[in-house]
Amino acid sequence: MTRALELGPGAEFDAIRALVERWGPRATGIGDDAAVLRIARGEALVASVDSFVEGQHFKRDWMSPREIGYKAVVAALSDLAAMAATPLGVLVAFTVPHSWRSVLLDLADGIGDAVELAGAHVVGGNLIDGGELSITTTVLGCAFAPLPRAGARAGDGVYVTGELGGPASAVERLANGRPADAFRERFVKPAPRLAEARWLAEQGAHAAIDISDGLVADLRHIAAASNVSIQIDAAAVPCLRGVAVEVALTGGEEYELVVTSPLDFDRDEFTRRFNVPLTKVGVVGAAGTGVTVRGARVADAPGYDHFST
Amino acid sequence: MTRALELGPGAEFDAIRALVERWGPRATGIGDDAAVLRIARGEALVASVDSFVEGQHFKRDWMSPREIGYKAVVAALSDLAAMAATPLGVLVAFTVPHSWRSVLLDLADGIGDAVELAGAHVVGGNLIDGGELSITTTVLGCAFAPLPRAGARAGDGVYVTGELGGPASAVERLANGRPADAFRERFVKPAPRLAEARWLAEQGAHAAIDISDGLVADLRHIAAASNVSIQIDAAAVPCLRGVAVEVALTGGEEYELVVTSPLDFDRDEFTRRFNVPLTKVGVVGAAGTGVTVRGARVADAPGYDHFST
Repeated sequence: MTRALELGPGAEFDAIRALVERWGPRATGIGDDAAVLRIARGEALVASVDSFVEGQHFKRDWMSPREIGYKAVVAALSDLAAMAATPLGVLVAFTVPHSWRSVLLDLADGIGDAVELAGAHVVGGNLIDGGELSITTTVLGCAFAPLPRAGARAGDGVYVTGELGGPASAVERLANGRPADAFRERFVKPAPRLAEARWLAEQGAHAAIDISDGLVADLRHIAAASNVSIQIDAAAVPCLRGVAVEVALTGGEEYELVVTSPLDFDRDEFTRRFNVPLTKVGVVGAAGTGVTVRGARVADAPGYDHFST
Repeated sequence: MTRALELGPGAEFDAIRALVERWGPRATGIGDDAAVLRIARGEALVASVDSFVEGQHFKRDWMSPREIGYKAVVAALSDLAAMAATPLGVLVAFTVPHSWRSVLLDLADGIGDAVELAGAHVVGGNLIDGGELSITTTVLGCAFAPLPRAGARAGDGVYVTGELGGPASAVERLANGRPADAFRERFVKPAPRLAEARWLAEQGAHAAIDISDGLVADLRHIAAASNVSIQIDAAAVPCLRGVAVEVALTGGEEYELVVTSPLDFDRDEFTRRFNVPLTKVGVVGAAGTGVTVRGARVADAPGYDHFST
């Protein structure tokens, strides 16, 4: 993949064939050197890539293979949501160690769950052997007006979808050998806020980002890109039941959205449509002082920094 | 990347900043959740992904970091060439072990060489820590009429660009601890045949593939996708000086093109334009018998099978 379906012998090609069969109608157009997609007139192509690696992003005994496949793709789709883009296709580059080969089709099921949820298709990929499981997902989407990080303006409100802190709380428990319980679902089954993002963009949002590093860390990206300051009110931050606000402010892998907007949204309408709360958590101020949090102490470091030792 | 240029603290962000600075004008639009690209009206988006992994595709003492970065991207660009597409942007997902960090910018230089040669830009990526160096490149391009594998028809001639066998001969020597000498250049500095492919498509080529697995193995993909047989004349296959024809028929990582066409090309004109030979090596026959080679013995197995033990 982007390998032909009808190929000569070889374990690689057999494995690709098995993947494509497993995906069924959720995979399309695989079998040439590259995928071919049409972008509607006037729309821009929106593209992003994300890697999901054993030991870095998950431990094998914390998640089922199907959950791993799902989350790898959702993490990438979430970047399309952050741009208010509509997903078109997904390219999946697998590195699969010998010890994972027996569950390759379970990983595929999770990937299929994610593309189906997003209304997209697997349109290509790559499959190689290697020492650690790695799923690198490229997402291709389209949007008339992609929602940037750089659009926040002084006076905007800051809004967040969902309730925060679940994934970080799950990781904290799992790392200590305890069951993640109520937090597990948010950790293994995050939802890409794709339809939510398009609605927020249509309603006039100025800027957006998805929470992958942590609410405060990701708002710093908006502040830097937009050259504004942002003030967050800790008391307003929507915490999942049982989560301390510091965890909700800093926990990563949420894949919830934060947007800024000059006008308040009809938040009841949002919840009716998407069955998810939308909460105002702060305001955008003048240039230059980054993100400040009123009512809680938050360390300077970003929530996640995969490239640190 | 698709990470912001202006970010909070953290080694990951510092490394991304350093990469983007190193690329200079060869990187554009990095700093949002996703890249935004425009496809010209009437053109299709053509997309492919390819992974280049230490131990699988290269050994560290065989190539310089700059050569590794270059080849990783050229291998992916070659899939766009096989579709006769014009490159627009490249997304680069790095997994970088600690032992490779000091040469990250050398890898970046090679990636920059490749995108510059292709007239494209780095438009996004991902950077994480990991146990083995891996560069997964997504290439995004456009074409009015992408050239498929499935277009070969009985009666077409089969044409190949360049002279074959260099990369396989280099690998054979390096694996035996000998210098690759004259074969080295073809192994470390393959050229993506992008302009050549567009010219061949304009001149009426029916089908194309790039030689990544080996001439015969890749022609099998065309035969299967097009439901035709293909006869190759070993005596006609253009071999690099000092290469046995069996090696030219089966060696991978060539990144030369094979196309089929109902009419012969002006091959002198091709060589004048691109300074590369274009050679007729065989013909397309009726359905059903795969690829046969007259005048040489070629094993059944594909040239490369990364997923075999």
